[in-house]
Amino acid sequence: MKAVQVIEYDEPPVLVDVPDPQITGPLDVIVKVGGAGVCRTDLHVLEGQWAAKSGVVLPYTIGHENAGWVQEVGQAVTNVKVGDPVILHPLATCGLCRPCRDGDDVHCMSSAFPGIDADGGYAEYLKTTARSVVALDPSLEPASVAALADAGLTAYHAVAKAARILRPGDRVVVIGAGGLGHIGVQVLRALSPVEIIVIDRSADALALATELGADHTLVADGSETERVRELTGGHGAEAVLDFVGEGGAVETGVACLRRNGNYYVIGYGGRLDVPTIDVISTEINFIGNLVGSYNDLSELMVLAARGKVGLHTRRYPLASFQDALDDLSAGAVRGRAILIP
Amino acid sequence: MKAVQVIEYDEPPVLVDVPDPQITGPLDVIVKVGGAGVCRTDLHVLEGQWAAKSGVVLPYTIGHENAGWVQEVGQAVTNVKVGDPVILHPLATCGLCRPCRDGDDVHCMSSAFPGIDADGGYAEYLKTTARSVVALDPSLEPASVAALADAGLTAYHAVAKAARILRPGDRVVVIGAGGLGHIGVQVLRALSPVEIIVIDRSADALALATELGADHTLVADGSETERVRELTGGHGAEAVLDFVGEGGAVETGVACLRRNGNYYVIGYGGRLDVPTIDVISTEINFIGNLVGSYNDLSELMVLAARGKVGLHTRRYPLASFQDALDDLSAGAVRGRAILIP
Amino acid sequence: MKAVQVIEYDEPPVLVDVPDPQITGPLDVIVKVGGAGVCRTDLHVLEGQWAAKSGVVLPYTIGHENAGWVQEVGQAVTNVKVGDPVILHPLATCGLCRPCRDGDDVHCMSSAFPGIDADGGYAEYLKTTARSVVALDPSLEPASVAALADAGLTAYHAVAKAARILRPGDRVVVIGAGGLGHIGVQVLRALSPVEIIVIDRSADALALATELGADHTLVADGSETERVRELTGGHGAEAVLDFVGEGGAVETGVACLRRNGNYYVIGYGGRLDVPTIDVISTEINFIGNLVGSYNDLSELMVLAARGKVGLHTRRYPLASFQDALDDLSAGAVRGRAILIP
Amino acid sequence: MKAVQVIEYDEPPVLVDVPDPQITGPLDVIVKVGGAGVCRTDLHVLEGQWAAKSGVVLPYTIGHENAGWVQEVGQAVTNVKVGDPVILHPLATCGLCRPCRDGDDVHCMSSAFPGIDADGGYAEYLKTTARSVVALDPSLEPASVAALADAGLTAYHAVAKAARILRPGDRVVVIGAGGLGHIGVQVLRALSPVEIIVIDRSADALALATELGADHTLVADGSETERVRELTGGHGAEAVLDFVGEGGAVETGVACLRRNGNYYVIGYGGRLDVPTIDVISTEINFIGNLVGSYNDLSELMVLAARGKVGLHTRRYPLASFQDALDDLSAGAVRGRAILIP
Repeated sequence: MKAVQVIEYDEPPVLVDVPDPQITGPLDVIVKVGGAGVCRTDLHVLEGQWAAKSGVVLPYTIGHENAGWVQEVGQAVTNVKVGDPVILHPLATCGLCRPCRDGDDVHCMSSAFPGIDADGGYAEYLKTTARSVVALDPSLEPASVAALADAGLTAYHAVAKAARILRPGDRVVVIGAGGLGHIGVQVLRALSPVEIIVIDRSADALALATELGADHTLVADGSETERVRELTGGHGAEAVLDFVGEGGAVETGVACLRRNGNYYVIGYGGRLDVPTIDVISTEINFIGNLVGSYNDLSELMVLAARGKVGLHTRRYPLASFQDALDDLSAGAVRGRAILIP
Repeated sequence: MKAVQVIEYDEPPVLVDVPDPQITGPLDVIVKVGGAGVCRTDLHVLEGQWAAKSGVVLPYTIGHENAGWVQEVGQAVTNVKVGDPVILHPLATCGLCRPCRDGDDVHCMSSAFPGIDADGGYAEYLKTTARSVVALDPSLEPASVAALADAGLTAYHAVAKAARILRPGDRVVVIGAGGLGHIGVQVLRALSPVEIIVIDRSADALALATELGADHTLVADGSETERVRELTGGHGAEAVLDFVGEGGAVETGVACLRRNGNYYVIGYGGRLDVPTIDVISTEINFIGNLVGSYNDLSELMVLAARGKVGLHTRRYPLASFQDALDDLSAGAVRGRAILIP
Repeated sequence: MKAVQVIEYDEPPVLVDVPDPQITGPLDVIVKVGGAGVCRTDLHVLEGQWAAKSGVVLPYTIGHENAGWVQEVGQAVTNVKVGDPVILHPLATCGLCRPCRDGDDVHCMSSAFPGIDADGGYAEYLKTTARSVVALDPSLEPASVAALADAGLTAYHAVAKAARILRPGDRVVVIGAGGLGHIGVQVLRALSPVEIIVIDRSADALALATELGADHTLVADGSETERVRELTGGHGAEAVLDFVGEGGAVETGVACLRRNGNYYVIGYGGRLDVPTIDVISTEINFIGNLVGSYNDLSELMVLAARGKVGLHTRRYPLASFQDALDDLSAGAVRGRAILIP
Repeated sequence: MKAVQVIEYDEPPVLVDVPDPQITGPLDVIVKVGGAGVCRTDLHVLEGQWAAKSGVVLPYTIGHENAGWVQEVGQAVTNVKVGDPVILHPLATCGLCRPCRDGDDVHCMSSAFPGIDADGGYAEYLKTTARSVVALDPSLEPASVAALADAGLTAYHAVAKAARILRPGDRVVVIGAGGLGHIGVQVLRALSPVEIIVIDRSADALALATELGADHTLVADGSETERVRELTGGHGAEAVLDFVGEGGAVETGVACLRRNGNYYVIGYGGRLDVPTIDVISTEINFIGNLVGSYNDLSELMVLAARGKVGLHTRRYPLASFQDALDDLSAGAVRGRAILIP
């Protein structure tokens, strides 16, 4: 089959012929790729930034946001059958450790991460396991949802965690309405009737946020903290969802938080740096968020099927992978780039 | 009556005669003080550190850890009656705002704090309200529990929050087994069969922790992080209860935390300073903790009555208040100093 | 002022002149009634069904679903001011008992119930306390929301409890889309993207349910259990909200429930009668529901202000109270009858 | 190997030679049985009561409470290794369905139940899967804990669910201190400082309950409801744990429950029969309980290793299986009978 592989770091990846993957274990699933998201992380992989961390042996196939159709299954697979449209959870988990046994897949004590430390989805076929495939509603086309597999799942996980304790009348500040953030706004709107205040530097991003259900939008021009105070009767917001995590976002976010409020850290890059006296005197919490669980992904797919969460995509044939990578690198992709084998 | 009042900041307080407090509102309660805890915060008050924050008008009576007997009640008081032994919640809350209506007294939107911004308990009598008095089990003497009103309540609040999600087999690191920490160990032992690992610089504090139920104790000598890793199979602890909050405690504590673990910030003084990528890649949480609610205080008194939580106290007559303050300042009090009017 | 009073049981109530209520305590609030809901319970009160239970002394003013404007306040009232539009929580709670201190107003250990055991809202003015008044958004007219004070609050309380643990993809069966049920459907739609299946005997009620957001409607004709099984892949629903509670509803509801499902008992009249082996072998839960808390009522008013929950009302001048009672008794009121003083 | 098999219903089982089990799948685990609990359910199996329900084909090996040592593992097994002492979760679950992915093993949509519908543990070896084996602390002997695998796990599951929301000062009524109940008392004592009130018909059972940590014991002689009211200030208990579920236990238990209380149904045989008006007017809940999850079993084993939960056992060589069954049937076993191959 055709696959896009990293041959050497800091070199462009190459479209090569590799053997088709084969079923070898009873829980194996081979997926015919319907769409593979092209993500900023792929650029970092190509630059070698993940080399030491992943320990992957070159050459290998990249692509960690994948969806498609079940092509073949091992004998013990019971949750999907040949032909089913599926989306792939980014991790292949063991199913045996204590976190797995609690439904907390993300903290599996021996998981693999296809596209990062194993062959991924920039290919015609991808081998994964029954524990990673979520069957899609017939109304959902794999290429349309592939990019929800990682970025969307992270946003869903954090927002659903927040929504579980939010109540009508609560205010939520969303920092950043870009890739993750604009999915976060959609999920929040679907899960809760809270008042949503979105902060972003881009007027376009804010216009999109309004369209997706934000109640208020604020340009990040230095006045946003004061504006949030005004919009919240001087008290601040019950929750802040920070999809940025750098460049002053944390300082702004903390200043927007109400006593006893929850700060959801999703984006990253900067530091969380707060005097402990401020943490205790206002009794605020900082909640870390990684990607969601398998069941989180199932729930996100329900929202997608109900039309509550959508993505703009721009599609490229697999052979045009370099165009997709270049466009992403140049900031020329609106929404998400998707490779179609 | 006799009362110890702050006349001027940076001057010793003075024992003076002041009018007895009078019932003026239907929910007023006058308490004959049985014991008033002498706390490090009192030293800070005397130095004027709270002057701007509290806005209190001098002279006034200090003392914010109080217990005694009900002397007189307003006509609408139904939860205690004259003669009842009681402990006082540190805050006098409004009962009408949304946090109060949720049982979240500590975030009351218009509370008073007797001993800090109103007359406190270094006196023969103290006026408070029905919303602040918790009736004591007859087995509990007010002077023995007074110091649980603030320090103890803070420890209870944080530990009970942690215990709600801990499970048998989980490990908890307690940083600091001093004033708050040694109460925290007792509460944790009472609420949960987790494995308790205590870190402190003092061998005496660690010996006391062992006596109170700690499973492991570690001297804070730089090796503690490594030792915690060994004791937790290399994974770290499910929870860290940080009663110190300064001087390297946070760095140590974060290094002891397991993926998906919870860090309870209780002590303060230093900074919480962590790269956001560490927060998200391990999906850890930082949980702020202020003093507990009225019902928390009731629960703590149940533990005290069942003999699960105790305090060493050293008693001084009210007139010897200066000795108590001096002893505290000199580090010469084992346990807590209590003034007995 | 004018008030409609019960003079004798089994006799029509009478419009009489009574003294205006006066502020006597610091937390008292006098409300100028803007609308008083006419409820089936009022008919039962007039028949004397509540005489023994309430112990009320005749004559007294009925009416327990009230909203209006603040006319006068006691000196300690801080949550509302003269002129504010307000809705009244049905209970006047003590604020001092353990349930009150947990925000669990409904289980207050010494509450009053105006309109049932104290003077109610079929009058020009009503005296209540600060603990019972919820300020309304300026967009809400008291007469439009008065009937949400009791019936609506019960529906909100149960549905919000259910929604807290429901997830996208879950199915909820709502039994009964009448007075409470049609509010329940609106609340459920506002709080959660679950799949809503409504069962009712009336085609009109089902048509309304569809309009309010139900995904599926089933006529209660004996086939509904089988239909629910079909709609849920043979597994049953994650939750059943039973607004009927009699006449076979419980049997139907239990048969619609999935393993590990939750059955919310809201309506009443019949028996909950299930073999214990069925309870344990499927591990189902039965959850009782009474009226909601003060904060629940605040949240419901947020939903009303956001246009998520509405009611049909038919208004009568206070002096036409007998017409309203007669129309209700005859089943001639669509939506809720409201008296306007 | 030797195994005790059911050849025909209503006939005594027979000790026969059967082939040793073999590893055939990558997650298979073969356990050398160290102890197999002899349970009343085994008597029912022999009488054919489970024939239709289980659909098992005769002959087969009974025994569903098993512990031992790992003898051999499939190639994908990572959670145990040869020689490890283990206890077996009663269900062999799929790991792929939504309940399994939430850690809710018990509601697995395609589980097997060795000893009931597949070969069980009255044998020298037993084949199970990696998903069912919990590694034991070296201090625990398999034969000592085998009987915790099913009965103990059920008690743990229910009590841990209750303990999660109980607070110091709450009262819990435990109905029945027999096989499950006396484990329940131990678990409750380990997890919570609540006040425990135990009701049983047997003075011996009550004496044991006191020894295990009950605060009060009441003979079930018709006065127990009144006694519970006295012990709870007239309010009833916050929780009832009903390990009996028949013969008047439910009526007694409901009468002992406080407003807003939780009734945990664990034992079975009778009916849960309550007017819906009683359910809503006191807002009580009925919580079903089946056996616990895999992680519940791990936690129970932690309690066992810490010496918090113990069992009396009487051991029989495997060849004396008929004596064990006869003794159990005659009520001549104190504690639990265990077969030792």
